Amino acid sequence: MTGLVDHKDPDSSKTVMSFEDIVLAMREDMARVEERVRLAAQVEYPGLGRLLQAIVESGGKRLRPLLLLLAAKPFEYDLKPLIPAAAGVELLHTASLVHDDTIDTSQLRRGQPTLNSLFDSGTVILIGDYLFAQSAILAAATMNPRVVAVFASSLADICDGQLREVFTAHRLDQSTEEYAHRIYGKTASLFAGAAEMGAILGGANEAQIDAMRGFGGDVGMAFQIIDDVLDLRSSADVTGKTANLDLRQGTVTLPTMLYRRRVSGTPEEALLQTVIDGKDVSDEDYLNLAMRIEESGAIDEAVTTAQDYVSSALHRLEFIEDAQLLASFEAFANLALERTS
Amino acid sequence: MTGLVDHKDPDSSKTVMSFEDIVLAMREDMARVEERVRLAAQVEYPGLGRLLQAIVESGGKRLRPLLLLLAAKPFEYDLKPLIPAAAGVELLHTASLVHDDTIDTSQLRRGQPTLNSLFDSGTVILIGDYLFAQSAILAAATMNPRVVAVFASSLADICDGQLREVFTAHRLDQSTEEYAHRIYGKTASLFAGAAEMGAILGGANEAQIDAMRGFGGDVGMAFQIIDDVLDLRSSADVTGKTANLDLRQGTVTLPTMLYRRRVSGTPEEALLQTVIDGKDVSDEDYLNLAMRIEESGAIDEAVTTAQDYVSSALHRLEFIEDAQLLASFEAFANLALERTS
Repeated sequence: MTGLVDHKDPDSSKTVMSFEDIVLAMREDMARVEERVRLAAQVEYPGLGRLLQAIVESGGKRLRPLLLLLAAKPFEYDLKPLIPAAAGVELLHTASLVHDDTIDTSQLRRGQPTLNSLFDSGTVILIGDYLFAQSAILAAATMNPRVVAVFASSLADICDGQLREVFTAHRLDQSTEEYAHRIYGKTASLFAGAAEMGAILGGANEAQIDAMRGFGGDVGMAFQIIDDVLDLRSSADVTGKTANLDLRQGTVTLPTMLYRRRVSGTPEEALLQTVIDGKDVSDEDYLNLAMRIEESGAIDEAVTTAQDYVSSALHRLEFIEDAQLLASFEAFANLALERTS
Repeated sequence: MTGLVDHKDPDSSKTVMSFEDIVLAMREDMARVEERVRLAAQVEYPGLGRLLQAIVESGGKRLRPLLLLLAAKPFEYDLKPLIPAAAGVELLHTASLVHDDTIDTSQLRRGQPTLNSLFDSGTVILIGDYLFAQSAILAAATMNPRVVAVFASSLADICDGQLREVFTAHRLDQSTEEYAHRIYGKTASLFAGAAEMGAILGGANEAQIDAMRGFGGDVGMAFQIIDDVLDLRSSADVTGKTANLDLRQGTVTLPTMLYRRRVSGTPEEALLQTVIDGKDVSDEDYLNLAMRIEESGAIDEAVTTAQDYVSSALHRLEFIEDAQLLASFEAFANLALERTS
């Protein structure tokens, strides 16, 4: 593995790194992961093959495989099983996005038209299943039963989280604990799983595996909270997704919950309920609600919660003595927050 | 494991068993498999929980887990990892049926309304994914990396077979080799995988594992050919499915291919093409085509092909000396054919 680049902050003795520094430092290993991802998306049918390549190459930051590789770095490790594990985690994520887009009926993802805007839902299901299968093959290629178990239970958690989202849609009377449970499944579980797999394959001891898993989970929570914040704050131009999709789907996220607390008992609460019910609601109504949530300070409060998760994540890694390594985990964790800008 | 019941055929020295005998002999082990399947379908949401239980309990013959257990019987084996493996194989099959019904947009399965006639497709996708995840957890519970690898590649084969079906729909110019490849993926691969997993966990040697995998694959081929035959021969009353669904979807199966050979160059061929194209075709047209295929003898020819697969399957198991055991494999293989009646 290539060494991590060192950037000294002139104003302190603390080592400071940016996310780009990690990406640069990990580029050789990540290129091997990328190669495995591309191979897994190769199929015989020319049309479908091009499409699958486009899906897996359409990017994203490859956060999960990066985290998996990073999580092995503090320990003695063999790179060989890390590469398929990292590729498997990325494909699991991609498969889940493919199915998620069918569920959301989004028309845009990462600024590209989604599969379900191009194909019938049956074909999209199969494409997602195919990617799931390829990710499972990669997990199995680690030949590590514990890694496979983490992989499988991450997938179960993702489905559980998504089912919770479907079954709690249009319900304003959810607690923030329910929200946390739901987004843990939907998003944080795979970050937790990626970090855990990296630590296991890296040869960490049980306490270190636990800490690493906790780090991944906390960062994942921050990541999803910020995602929910961005959904309220941004237009389609910025996120490459349909704007205010959560509101449109009746998905109640943390900022909306915090806003509801603020307007409890006022006429604003009834208005909120109407929009979340989603019957005869116009584009303008969604936009107006998003603005009211912003003006109430509820979105800023949600951002603070995300920052708390990142702090918690970093506390867990205090056992790492290497300042440079620690800085790379910090840069990774902070990326979740930097997405607000 | 309970001993297999012995039935002597009065007219020969050969041991003869029926499928019911196997089921009876395996009932204790299968009850444990059933328990694991039920446990995996337990979820928190009451409505969804009942539904999932109904899906996994709605039956079928549990052929795949039965085959997995049977495949371990000729060897020294430990029952413990066989139970989760068998439950995992059944859940993988169930998950694949759930997604398949969405793709087929069938309204009936095993005589029951399908999920996609009750829920929106997004929810059905998630339910299928959830069952996939549970099946992967069970495969991982065997703690056997090779079994997990077989499991994952069976899933990949299933998706590949189903994708081939989608991408070759409405195309009459397919070879029987393409058909074989497609149904191997869609159906035979999981029979092959189940038998292989049983043999691996049973502690068979490589040649025996290969033979067992071959047995499962051949029986699976026979099973799917007969399934395609039944689709043409039966009405919804008998199969609990929509009648002539393959024709309606433009799926060209073996009997249709054999019929096409018989009518090549005649006006019947043009008529066949029109129905497979599926544009402005009435219920009566589908029914009439099914009758013409039957009358041509093409369906009988397909049944003969299925019989050949069963013979091939049984040849592979000549290394088994125990007559009673051999009779149970024979009963299992013949079940595929008995479904014609």
